[in-house]
Amino acid sequence: MRIDIISAVPALLESPLNHSIVKRALDKGLVEIHVHDLRDYTEDKHNKIDDYPYGGEPGMVLTPQPIFSCVEHLQSERDYDEVIFTAPDGETFEQEHANKLSLKGNIMILCGHYKGVDQRVRDELITSEFSVGDYVLSGGELPALVITDAIVRLLPGVLGDAGSALNDSFQDGLLEGPVYTRPSDFRGLQVPEVLLSGNHKKIAEWKQQQAEKRTKERRTDLYKKFKKEH
Amino acid sequence: MRIDIISAVPALLESPLNHSIVKRALDKGLVEIHVHDLRDYTEDKHNKIDDYPYGGEPGMVLTPQPIFSCVEHLQSERDYDEVIFTAPDGETFEQEHANKLSLKGNIMILCGHYKGVDQRVRDELITSEFSVGDYVLSGGELPALVITDAIVRLLPGVLGDAGSALNDSFQDGLLEGPVYTRPSDFRGLQVPEVLLSGNHKKIAEWKQQQAEKRTKERRTDLYKKFKKEH
Repeated sequence: MRIDIISAVPALLESPLNHSIVKRALDKGLVEIHVHDLRDYTEDKHNKIDDYPYGGEPGMVLTPQPIFSCVEHLQSERDYDEVIFTAPDGETFEQEHANKLSLKGNIMILCGHYKGVDQRVRDELITSEFSVGDYVLSGGELPALVITDAIVRLLPGVLGDAGSALNDSFQDGLLEGPVYTRPSDFRGLQVPEVLLSGNHKKIAEWKQQQAEKRTKERRTDLYKKFKKEH
Repeated sequence: MRIDIISAVPALLESPLNHSIVKRALDKGLVEIHVHDLRDYTEDKHNKIDDYPYGGEPGMVLTPQPIFSCVEHLQSERDYDEVIFTAPDGETFEQEHANKLSLKGNIMILCGHYKGVDQRVRDELITSEFSVGDYVLSGGELPALVITDAIVRLLPGVLGDAGSALNDSFQDGLLEGPVYTRPSDFRGLQVPEVLLSGNHKKIAEWKQQQAEKRTKERRTDLYKKFKKEH
Protein backbone atom coordinates (compact mmCIF):
# COMPACT_ATOMS: atom_id res chain seq x y z
CA MET A 1 0.00 0.00 0.00
CA ARG A 2 1.07 3.57 -0.72
CA ILE A 3 -0.19 6.73 1.02
CA ASP A 4 0.66 10.22 -0.28
CA ILE A 5 -0.01 13.09 2.11
CA ILE A 6 -0.15 16.66 0.75
CA SER A 7 0.33 19.42 3.30
CA ALA A 8 1.09 23.09 3.76
CA VAL A 9 2.96 22.19 6.99
CA PRO A 10 4.76 18.95 6.08
CA ALA A 11 7.24 19.17 8.98
CA LEU A 12 4.33 18.76 11.40
CA LEU A 13 3.85 15.19 10.13
CA GLU A 14 7.38 13.99 10.85
CA SER A 15 7.46 12.51 14.34
CA PRO A 16 4.15 10.60 14.23
CA LEU A 17 5.18 8.96 10.95
CA ASN A 18 8.52 7.93 12.44
CA HIS A 19 7.40 6.20 15.62
CA SER A 20 5.31 3.37 16.93
CA ILE A 21 3.17 1.23 14.66
CA VAL A 22 3.49 3.37 11.52
CA LYS A 23 7.29 3.25 11.76
CA ARG A 24 7.14 -0.53 12.19
CA ALA A 25 4.98 -0.87 9.07
CA LEU A 26 7.36 1.34 7.08
CA ASP A 27 10.38 -0.64 8.28
CA LYS A 28 8.75 -3.92 7.31
CA GLY A 29 7.96 -2.53 3.85
CA LEU A 30 4.21 -3.03 4.40
CA VAL A 31 3.39 0.56 3.47
CA GLU A 32 5.06 3.47 1.70
CA ILE A 33 4.20 6.96 2.96
CA HIS A 34 5.25 10.03 0.97
CA VAL A 35 4.76 13.57 2.24
CA HIS A 36 4.48 16.43 -0.27
CA ASP A 37 5.01 20.10 0.50
CA LEU A 38 2.44 22.27 -1.27
CA ARG A 39 5.02 25.05 -1.54
CA ASP A 40 7.02 22.88 -3.96
CA TYR A 41 4.13 23.14 -6.41
CA THR A 42 3.24 26.83 -6.39
CA GLU A 43 3.77 28.89 -9.54
CA ASP A 44 3.35 32.12 -7.60
CA LYS A 45 6.43 34.30 -7.79
CA HIS A 46 6.28 35.01 -4.05
CA ASN A 47 5.86 31.30 -3.29
CA LYS A 48 2.37 31.88 -1.90
CA ILE A 49 -0.05 28.99 -1.46
CA ASP A 50 -2.94 30.82 0.21
CA ASP A 51 -4.90 34.05 -0.21
CA TYR A 52 -7.79 36.01 1.31
CA PRO A 53 -11.22 34.48 0.87
CA TYR A 54 -13.74 36.16 -1.40
CA GLY A 55 -16.55 37.70 0.60
CA GLY A 56 -14.38 39.09 3.36
CA GLU A 57 -14.11 36.47 6.08
CA PRO A 58 -11.13 36.30 8.43
CA GLY A 59 -8.49 33.66 7.77
CA MET A 60 -6.61 32.49 4.69
CA VAL A 61 -7.70 29.92 2.11
CA LEU A 62 -5.46 27.56 0.12
CA THR A 63 -5.43 28.57 -3.58
CA PRO A 64 -6.33 26.04 -6.27
CA GLN A 65 -3.17 26.08 -8.42
CA PRO A 66 -0.59 24.37 -6.13
CA ILE A 67 -3.08 21.66 -5.13
CA PHE A 68 -4.16 20.94 -8.72
CA SER A 69 -0.49 20.80 -9.78
CA CYS A 70 0.50 18.43 -6.97
CA VAL A 71 -2.48 16.07 -7.28
CA GLU A 72 -2.21 15.94 -11.09
CA HIS A 73 1.53 15.33 -10.89
CA LEU A 74 0.96 12.33 -8.61
CA GLN A 75 -1.92 11.05 -10.73
CA SER A 76 0.33 11.16 -13.82
CA GLU A 77 2.64 8.68 -12.06
CA ARG A 78 0.11 6.12 -10.83
CA ASP A 79 -3.60 5.49 -10.34
CA TYR A 80 -5.11 6.44 -7.02
CA ASP A 81 -8.10 4.65 -5.51
CA GLU A 82 -9.03 7.64 -3.38
CA VAL A 83 -8.14 11.32 -3.03
CA ILE A 84 -9.20 12.13 0.51
CA PHE A 85 -9.71 15.59 1.96
CA THR A 86 -9.80 16.17 5.72
CA ALA A 87 -12.34 18.78 6.84
CA PRO A 88 -14.80 19.29 9.72
CA ASP A 89 -17.70 19.19 7.27
CA GLY A 90 -16.69 15.85 5.74
CA GLU A 91 -18.31 12.48 6.38
CA THR A 92 -17.62 11.28 9.91
CA PHE A 93 -14.65 8.90 9.77
CA GLU A 94 -15.37 5.57 11.46
CA GLN A 95 -13.73 2.19 11.85
CA GLU A 96 -15.49 0.75 8.79
CA HIS A 97 -13.87 3.45 6.62
CA ALA A 98 -10.48 2.45 7.97
CA ASN A 99 -11.28 -1.21 7.25
CA LYS A 100 -12.23 -0.44 3.64
CA LEU A 101 -9.31 1.91 2.99
CA SER A 102 -6.86 -0.67 4.33
CA LEU A 103 -7.73 -2.83 1.31
CA LYS A 104 -6.83 -0.15 -1.26
CA GLY A 105 -3.60 0.16 -3.23
CA ASN A 106 -2.79 3.88 -3.51
CA ILE A 107 -4.48 6.67 -1.63
CA MET A 108 -3.81 10.38 -1.43
CA ILE A 109 -4.72 12.55 1.55
CA LEU A 110 -4.92 16.32 1.14
CA CYS A 111 -4.68 18.00 4.53
CA GLY A 112 -7.32 20.65 5.05
CA HIS A 113 -6.11 24.09 6.01
CA TYR A 114 -7.19 26.25 8.88
CA LYS A 115 -9.80 28.45 7.25
CA GLY A 116 -10.34 26.23 4.26
CA VAL A 117 -9.43 25.18 0.77
CA ASP A 118 -10.86 26.71 -2.38
CA GLN A 119 -14.12 24.87 -3.11
CA ARG A 120 -13.06 24.18 -6.71
CA VAL A 121 -10.40 21.80 -5.38
CA ARG A 122 -13.05 19.89 -3.47
CA ASP A 123 -15.43 19.82 -6.45
CA GLU A 124 -12.88 18.65 -9.01
CA LEU A 125 -10.20 16.56 -7.30
CA ILE A 126 -11.54 14.99 -4.13
CA THR A 127 -13.24 11.57 -3.98
CA SER A 128 -13.91 11.37 -0.19
CA GLU A 129 -14.13 14.05 2.49
CA PHE A 130 -13.65 12.91 6.06
CA SER A 131 -14.03 14.57 9.43
CA VAL A 132 -12.37 12.72 12.30
CA GLY A 133 -14.76 14.29 14.83
CA ASP A 134 -17.05 17.19 15.70
CA TYR A 135 -14.38 19.66 16.73
CA VAL A 136 -12.25 22.19 14.92
CA LEU A 137 -8.48 21.82 14.60
CA SER A 138 -5.91 24.25 13.32
CA GLY A 139 -5.24 22.15 10.22
CA GLY A 140 -5.88 18.85 8.51
CA GLU A 141 -2.51 17.36 9.42
CA LEU A 142 -3.61 15.65 12.65
CA PRO A 143 -6.71 14.21 10.93
CA ALA A 144 -4.47 12.92 8.10
CA LEU A 145 -2.25 11.25 10.71
CA VAL A 146 -5.29 9.78 12.46
CA ILE A 147 -6.61 8.31 9.20
CA THR A 148 -3.15 7.00 8.27
CA ASP A 149 -2.65 5.34 11.67
CA ALA A 150 -6.14 3.79 11.67
CA ILE A 151 -5.47 2.27 8.23
CA VAL A 152 -1.85 1.21 8.65
CA ARG A 153 -2.37 -0.78 11.86
CA LEU A 154 -4.88 -2.97 9.99
CA LEU A 155 -2.44 -4.01 7.25
CA PRO A 156 -1.59 -7.71 7.54
CA GLY A 157 1.70 -8.19 9.37
CA VAL A 158 1.78 -4.81 11.09
CA LEU A 159 0.48 -5.80 14.52
CA GLY A 160 2.46 -8.50 16.29
CA ASP A 161 -0.55 -10.68 16.91
CA ALA A 162 -2.96 -11.12 14.01
CA GLY A 163 -5.87 -11.64 16.37
CA SER A 164 -5.22 -8.33 18.01
CA ALA A 165 -7.01 -5.91 15.67
CA LEU A 166 -10.16 -8.05 15.43
CA ASN A 167 -10.44 -7.85 19.16
CA ASP A 168 -10.59 -4.04 19.24
CA SER A 169 -13.36 -1.77 20.36
CA PHE A 170 -15.80 -1.17 17.44
CA GLN A 171 -14.76 -4.24 15.43
CA ASP A 172 -17.46 -6.44 16.98
CA GLY A 173 -19.83 -3.55 17.67
CA LEU A 174 -18.93 -3.36 21.37
CA LEU A 175 -16.49 -1.32 23.38
CA GLU A 176 -13.82 -3.37 25.06
CA GLY A 177 -14.25 -4.00 28.77
CA PRO A 178 -11.66 -3.26 31.46
CA VAL A 179 -8.17 -4.78 31.24
CA TYR A 180 -5.76 -5.53 34.08
CA THR A 181 -2.11 -6.45 34.29
CA ARG A 182 0.43 -7.24 37.01
CA PRO A 183 0.56 -6.88 39.99
CA SER A 184 -2.70 -8.51 41.09
CA ASP A 185 -2.61 -6.32 44.19
CA PHE A 186 -1.47 -2.73 43.73
CA ARG A 187 -1.68 -0.72 46.96
CA GLY A 188 -4.60 -2.87 48.00
CA LEU A 189 -6.44 -2.42 44.70
CA GLN A 190 -7.28 -5.95 43.48
CA VAL A 191 -7.64 -7.46 40.02
CA PRO A 192 -11.09 -9.14 39.68
CA GLU A 193 -10.77 -12.71 40.91
CA VAL A 194 -12.20 -14.33 37.80
CA LEU A 195 -9.21 -13.11 35.75
CA LEU A 196 -6.85 -14.97 38.09
CA SER A 197 -8.95 -18.17 38.08
CA GLY A 198 -7.44 -19.80 34.98
CA ASN A 199 -10.98 -20.82 33.95
CA HIS A 200 -11.04 -19.77 30.30
CA LYS A 201 -14.76 -20.23 29.83
CA LYS A 202 -15.60 -18.08 32.85
CA ILE A 203 -13.06 -15.45 31.77
CA ALA A 204 -14.57 -15.28 28.29
CA GLU A 205 -18.07 -14.91 29.76
CA TRP A 206 -16.92 -12.18 32.14
CA LYS A 207 -15.22 -10.27 29.32
CA GLN A 208 -18.31 -10.43 27.11
CA GLN A 209 -20.48 -9.31 30.04
CA GLN A 210 -18.14 -6.42 30.86
CA ALA A 211 -17.94 -5.33 27.21
CA GLU A 212 -21.74 -5.28 26.96
CA LYS A 213 -22.05 -3.48 30.29
CA ARG A 214 -19.54 -0.80 29.33
CA THR A 215 -21.13 -0.29 25.94
CA LYS A 216 -24.61 -0.04 27.46
CA GLU A 217 -23.45 2.50 30.06
CA ARG A 218 -21.31 4.62 27.78
CA ARG A 219 -22.70 4.31 24.28
CA THR A 220 -26.38 3.45 24.12
CA ASP A 221 -26.26 4.12 20.35
CA LEU A 222 -23.74 1.30 19.78
CA TYR A 223 -25.47 -0.96 22.28
CA LYS A 224 -28.86 -0.71 20.57
CA LYS A 225 -27.24 -1.52 17.22
CA PHE A 226 -25.41 -4.48 18.75
CA LYS A 227 -28.58 -5.88 20.34
CA LYS A 228 -30.46 -5.62 17.06
CA GLU A 229 -27.77 -7.61 15.28
CA HIS A 230 -27.30 -10.34 17.93
CA MET B 1 -2.70 27.57 30.78
CA ARG B 2 -0.54 24.50 31.34
CA ILE B 3 -0.95 21.09 29.69
CA ASP B 4 1.04 18.03 30.83
CA ILE B 5 1.03 15.05 28.48
CA ILE B 6 2.11 11.63 29.80
CA SER B 7 3.14 9.11 27.17
CA ALA B 8 4.92 5.82 26.57
CA VAL B 9 6.11 7.21 23.19
CA PRO B 10 6.92 10.85 23.96
CA ALA B 11 9.05 11.33 20.83
CA LEU B 12 5.92 10.82 18.71
CA LEU B 13 4.52 14.09 20.07
CA GLU B 14 7.43 16.30 19.03
CA SER B 15 6.72 17.67 15.57
CA PRO B 16 3.02 18.50 16.03
CA LEU B 17 3.83 20.42 19.23
CA ASN B 18 6.53 22.40 17.42
CA HIS B 19 4.65 23.67 14.40
CA SER B 20 1.68 25.70 13.35
CA ILE B 21 -0.78 27.14 15.86
CA VAL B 22 0.49 25.24 18.91
CA LYS B 23 4.03 26.50 18.29
CA ARG B 24 2.71 30.04 17.94
CA ALA B 25 0.87 29.76 21.25
CA LEU B 26 4.00 28.40 22.97
CA ASP B 27 6.15 31.18 21.50
CA LYS B 28 3.70 33.83 22.69
CA GLY B 29 3.71 32.30 26.19
CA LEU B 30 -0.04 31.66 26.03
CA VAL B 31 0.34 28.01 26.97
CA GLU B 32 2.98 25.75 28.53
CA ILE B 33 3.09 22.15 27.32
CA HIS B 34 5.21 19.57 29.14
CA VAL B 35 5.69 16.03 27.87
CA HIS B 36 6.53 13.25 30.35
CA ASP B 37 8.07 9.91 29.47
CA LEU B 38 6.45 7.09 31.46
CA ARG B 39 9.77 5.23 31.44
CA ASP B 40 11.25 7.94 33.67
CA TYR B 41 8.83 6.85 36.40
CA THR B 42 9.11 3.07 36.40
CA GLU B 43 10.54 1.32 39.44
CA ASP B 44 10.90 -1.93 37.50
CA LYS B 45 14.52 -3.10 37.37
CA HIS B 46 14.21 -3.86 33.64
CA ASN B 47 12.63 -0.46 32.99
CA LYS B 48 9.36 -2.08 31.96
CA ILE B 49 6.16 -0.05 31.79
CA ASP B 50 3.80 -2.70 30.40
CA ASP B 51 2.97 -6.36 30.96
CA TYR B 52 0.66 -9.12 29.71
CA PRO B 53 -3.03 -8.69 30.50
CA TYR B 54 -4.68 -11.03 32.98
CA GLY B 55 -7.06 -13.38 31.23
CA GLY B 56 -4.85 -14.07 28.25
CA GLU B 57 -5.68 -11.53 25.57
CA PRO B 58 -3.15 -10.52 22.93
CA GLY B 59 -1.35 -7.18 23.37
CA MET B 60 0.37 -5.46 26.25
CA VAL B 61 -1.18 -3.31 28.97
CA LEU B 62 0.42 -0.35 30.77
CA THR B 63 1.12 -1.24 34.41
CA PRO B 64 -0.23 0.93 37.24
CA GLN B 65 2.99 1.87 39.06
CA PRO B 66 4.70 4.24 36.56
CA ILE B 67 1.42 6.07 35.85
CA PHE B 68 0.53 6.48 39.53
CA SER B 69 4.07 7.74 40.22
CA CYS B 70 4.02 10.25 37.36
CA VAL B 71 0.51 11.61 38.03
CA GLU B 72 1.12 11.87 41.77
CA HIS B 73 4.46 13.58 41.22
CA LEU B 74 2.79 16.24 39.05
CA GLN B 75 -0.12 16.62 41.49
CA SER B 76 2.35 17.23 44.31
CA GLU B 77 3.65 20.27 42.38
CA ARG B 78 0.33 21.94 41.46
CA ASP B 79 -3.42 21.42 41.35
CA TYR B 80 -4.91 20.00 38.17
CA ASP B 81 -8.44 20.78 36.99
CA GLU B 82 -8.62 17.61 34.92
CA VAL B 83 -6.69 14.37 34.45
CA ILE B 84 -7.82 13.23 31.00
CA PHE B 85 -7.40 9.75 29.56
CA THR B 86 -7.69 9.10 25.81
CA ALA B 87 -9.42 5.83 24.90
CA PRO B 88 -11.88 4.58 22.28
CA ASP B 89 -14.43 3.83 25.01
CA GLY B 90 -14.31 7.33 26.47
CA GLU B 91 -16.92 10.05 26.06
CA THR B 92 -16.99 11.35 22.49
CA PHE B 93 -14.87 14.51 22.38
CA GLU B 94 -16.73 17.44 20.82
CA GLN B 95 -16.23 21.15 20.31
CA GLU B 96 -18.02 22.03 23.55
CA HIS B 97 -15.47 19.98 25.51
CA ALA B 98 -12.68 21.95 23.83
CA ASN B 99 -14.48 25.21 24.68
CA LYS B 100 -14.79 24.24 28.36
CA LEU B 101 -11.26 22.88 28.69
CA SER B 102 -9.81 26.08 27.16
CA LEU B 103 -11.02 27.92 30.29
CA LYS B 104 -9.10 25.68 32.71
CA GLY B 105 -5.76 26.37 34.36
CA ASN B 106 -3.83 23.08 34.49
CA ILE B 107 -4.77 19.88 32.75
CA MET B 108 -3.05 16.54 32.43
CA ILE B 109 -3.55 14.15 29.52
CA LEU B 110 -2.56 10.51 29.89
CA CYS B 111 -2.16 8.94 26.46
CA GLY B 112 -3.92 5.60 26.15
CA HIS B 113 -1.83 2.67 25.02
CA TYR B 114 -2.50 0.24 22.24
CA LYS B 115 -4.15 -2.61 24.11
CA GLY B 116 -5.00 -0.61 27.16
CA VAL B 117 -4.12 0.71 30.54
CA ASP B 118 -4.71 -1.12 33.80
CA GLN B 119 -8.28 -0.37 34.90
CA ARG B 120 -7.12 0.66 38.38
CA VAL B 121 -5.45 3.72 36.82
CA ARG B 122 -8.74 4.72 35.21
CA ASP B 123 -10.71 4.11 38.41
CA GLU B 124 -8.39 6.03 40.72
CA LEU B 125 -6.67 8.81 38.80
CA ILE B 126 -8.72 9.88 35.80
CA THR B 127 -11.37 12.61 35.88
CA SER B 128 -12.44 12.54 32.18
CA GLU B 129 -12.10 9.88 29.49
CA PHE B 130 -12.34 11.05 25.89
CA SER B 131 -12.55 9.30 22.56
CA VAL B 132 -11.81 11.53 19.56
CA GLY B 133 -13.87 9.29 17.26
CA ASP B 134 -15.26 5.80 16.58
CA TYR B 135 -12.08 4.24 15.25
CA VAL B 136 -9.09 2.50 16.80
CA LEU B 137 -5.61 4.00 16.75
CA SER B 138 -2.30 2.47 17.73
CA GLY B 139 -2.01 4.73 20.78
CA GLY B 140 -3.45 7.70 22.59
CA GLU B 141 -0.78 10.13 21.39
CA LEU B 142 -2.66 11.37 18.30
CA PRO B 143 -5.86 11.83 20.36
CA ALA B 144 -3.86 13.79 22.97
CA LEU B 145 -2.51 16.01 20.17
CA VAL B 146 -6.01 16.46 18.75
CA ILE B 147 -7.38 17.53 22.15
CA THR B 148 -4.40 19.83 22.74
CA ASP B 149 -4.77 21.50 19.34
CA ALA B 150 -8.54 21.93 19.71
CA ILE B 151 -8.03 23.64 23.08
CA VAL B 152 -4.96 25.74 22.33
CA ARG B 153 -6.36 27.41 19.22
CA LEU B 154 -9.22 28.78 21.35
CA LEU B 155 -6.95 30.56 23.86
CA PRO B 156 -7.28 34.33 23.55
CA GLY B 157 -4.49 35.76 21.40
CA VAL B 158 -3.55 32.52 19.63
CA LEU B 159 -5.42 33.03 16.37
CA GLY B 160 -4.54 36.18 14.46
CA ASP B 161 -8.12 37.33 14.16
CA ALA B 162 -10.21 37.07 17.30
CA GLY B 163 -13.38 36.63 15.26
CA SER B 164 -11.92 33.66 13.50
CA ALA B 165 -12.67 30.85 15.94
CA LEU B 166 -16.27 31.94 16.56
CA ASN B 167 -16.87 31.60 12.86
CA ASP B 168 -15.87 27.91 12.75
CA SER B 169 -17.92 24.90 11.87
CA PHE B 170 -19.76 23.63 15.02
CA GLN B 171 -19.50 26.93 16.95
CA ASP B 172 -22.89 28.16 15.71
CA GLY B 173 -24.32 24.67 15.22
CA LEU B 174 -23.78 24.70 11.45
CA LEU B 175 -21.05 23.45 9.15
CA GLU B 176 -19.30 26.20 7.26
CA GLY B 177 -20.29 26.63 3.61
CA PRO B 178 -17.86 26.67 0.67
CA VAL B 179 -14.99 29.18 0.59
CA TYR B 180 -13.22 30.57 -2.47
CA THR B 181 -10.06 32.57 -3.04
CA ARG B 182 -8.18 34.06 -5.99
CA PRO B 183 -8.23 33.71 -8.97
CA SER B 184 -11.93 34.24 -9.71
CA ASP B 185 -11.47 32.13 -12.84
CA PHE B 186 -9.26 29.06 -12.54
CA ARG B 187 -9.17 27.02 -15.75
CA GLY B 188 -12.72 28.17 -16.49
CA LEU B 189 -13.99 27.25 -13.03
CA GLN B 190 -15.71 30.37 -11.67
CA VAL B 191 -16.16 31.75 -8.18
CA PRO B 192 -19.91 32.30 -7.48
CA GLU B 193 -20.82 35.80 -8.68
CA VAL B 194 -22.36 36.95 -5.41
CA LEU B 195 -18.96 36.73 -3.69
CA LEU B 196 -17.51 39.18 -6.22
CA SER B 197 -20.47 41.58 -5.95
CA GLY B 198 -19.24 43.65 -3.01
CA ASN B 199 -22.78 43.56 -1.61
CA HIS B 200 -22.15 42.61 2.01
CA LYS B 201 -25.78 41.93 2.87
CA LYS B 202 -26.21 39.57 -0.09
CA ILE B 203 -22.92 37.86 0.67
CA ALA B 204 -23.94 37.28 4.29
CA GLU B 205 -27.30 35.85 3.18
CA TRP B 206 -25.62 33.57 0.66
CA LYS B 207 -23.16 32.29 3.27
CA GLN B 208 -25.91 31.54 5.77
CA GLN B 209 -27.92 29.77 3.05
CA GLN B 210 -24.90 27.71 1.97
CA ALA B 211 -24.03 26.79 5.56
CA GLU B 212 -27.60 25.59 6.19
CA LYS B 213 -27.66 23.72 2.86
CA ARG B 214 -24.38 21.95 3.53
CA THR B 215 -25.40 21.04 7.07
CA LYS B 216 -28.76 19.73 5.88
CA GLU B 217 -27.14 17.61 3.15
CA ARG B 218 -24.24 16.27 5.17
CA ARG B 219 -25.33 16.21 8.80
CA THR B 220 -29.05 15.91 9.33
CA ASP B 221 -28.33 15.36 13.06
CA LEU B 222 -26.75 18.81 13.43
CA TYR B 223 -29.33 20.41 11.14
CA LYS B 224 -32.29 19.17 13.18
CA LYS B 225 -30.67 20.46 16.37
CA PHE B 226 -29.98 23.83 14.71
CA LYS B 227 -33.57 24.17 13.48
CA LYS B 228 -34.94 23.39 16.92
CA GLU B 229 -32.80 26.12 18.46
CA HIS B 230 -33.47 28.86 15.86
